[in-house]
Amino acid sequence: MSTFNARLKEKIIQSKKNLCIAIDPDMDRLPEGYPRDIHGLEEFLRDILNFTQDSCIAYKLNLAFFESLGKDGIILLEKTLHLIRRVEGKLIIADAKRGDIENSSRKYAEAFFRYWNFDAITLNPYMGYDSIKPFLEYRNKGNIVLCLTSNESRRDFLLYGNPPLYAKVAEKIYEWNQAFDNVMAVVGATPEKHFLQEIKTILKGIPVLVPGIGAQGGSLETVMEVFSHGALISVGRSILYASSHRQNLEKAIFKFLEDYYRVIRKHLP
Amino acid sequence: MSTFNARLKEKIIQSKKNLCIAIDPDMDRLPEGYPRDIHGLEEFLRDILNFTQDSCIAYKLNLAFFESLGKDGIILLEKTLHLIRRVEGKLIIADAKRGDIENSSRKYAEAFFRYWNFDAITLNPYMGYDSIKPFLEYRNKGNIVLCLTSNESRRDFLLYGNPPLYAKVAEKIYEWNQAFDNVMAVVGATPEKHFLQEIKTILKGIPVLVPGIGAQGGSLETVMEVFSHGALISVGRSILYASSHRQNLEKAIFKFLEDYYRVIRKHLP
Repeated sequence: MSTFNARLKEKIIQSKKNLCIAIDPDMDRLPEGYPRDIHGLEEFLRDILNFTQDSCIAYKLNLAFFESLGKDGIILLEKTLHLIRRVEGKLIIADAKRGDIENSSRKYAEAFFRYWNFDAITLNPYMGYDSIKPFLEYRNKGNIVLCLTSNESRRDFLLYGNPPLYAKVAEKIYEWNQAFDNVMAVVGATPEKHFLQEIKTILKGIPVLVPGIGAQGGSLETVMEVFSHGALISVGRSILYASSHRQNLEKAIFKFLEDYYRVIRKHLP
Repeated sequence: MSTFNARLKEKIIQSKKNLCIAIDPDMDRLPEGYPRDIHGLEEFLRDILNFTQDSCIAYKLNLAFFESLGKDGIILLEKTLHLIRRVEGKLIIADAKRGDIENSSRKYAEAFFRYWNFDAITLNPYMGYDSIKPFLEYRNKGNIVLCLTSNESRRDFLLYGNPPLYAKVAEKIYEWNQAFDNVMAVVGATPEKHFLQEIKTILKGIPVLVPGIGAQGGSLETVMEVFSHGALISVGRSILYASSHRQNLEKAIFKFLEDYYRVIRKHLP
């Protein structure tokens, strides 16, 4: 069986698709026309999955949004996983940003890889290797480590030092990937192309998960020029909240996807 | 109403207690004599709370352990919170190590501060200020930011740079605390006293949460010499798994607590 990273790149090349839909179910932004309760949120997610399943290869479930709903959110998480799994072959990512001492990370790995059976998870590397190791041991799962994020305050610590911290983290990601080829990096789409190029040089062929396109303003063209079929592009708000009215949602999403793949086709011919 | 940090220091001085029990419910380590299932785990936690409630001022619930049990773990979390709240005045900390882009951190803050109504949370500062800000806005809650952790791999990134990253993080913690005096730092007990002294100098009077005593081998004496009544000491495994047999557990915990407070009394007279 091929490695996690090899399978991902193969899937992108075969399908000519590289979109990961970020599922951030937000009651406050639910389009008009859905009941403003947990059932409305479920209907909304069901529609989102129906409208997007032919256009994406992955779904990324943001745990923050599910957890904010308490016990109802956990049930919604279970239902969402069930709905996604009705369609074969979608990669399901827990966007959880976990990371703790080894003893605790082992339990998080059990939660996400064993109990919920996610295919991959996003991880926070602040505490270093032993906080990541228990996840890596699940060799067929994907471990997507925060490297250079897309938010404004990445300047606080990620650009610190010379070479900057994010480059140091990228080096470690390369090292950690050697055993099972099951580590990826989160690299936010930023206006400055040189960041992406530097990271690509360090990571060599390791694929990246790229948030920051769409609502956060990053350039899809730039990302594709640098990473080509090594990029899994995450888009959330620009799709989920493409329209503030239920009756226009499908059309608005279709329009977004059409524009999106017009750019992608130039780079994944 | 006084600030979160002022209230904590006051509580330590008044009670002459500074212990935070880390609740890491681990089915694999359940002492013999408890049924090896979710009900056994609940009985075990009930006993732990009974045996410790007079000796601690805080409980820190490690989300990794609850999450690893899936939906049952969420119900156990709810029951545990309920049990702790039967005794007045215990500070309840979510050991969650969360941190994400602002939009997502806002949802995590809702989950832990609004839905579960924790008094405080541990946070991961990797992504910088905007990932922490939504938590800080709950001005009566405590925000305990990872600074220098107690694990071996802290060397990977936290000691990087000159001054090292952890000092840079400590500076930001000081800065972030200015608005509402509701930010603390996680500072692991380490054999090297100079780390603690450097951090203390940067943080000035900001209190610290100190893991790493006990199972992880840090020195309580050293921590108390440096931080005195500014330290909330977290102990988990050395108490929860003080005995591998249910019938010896209370006695073993009592023995640990007696030794513990013998040291503390020298520093909190």
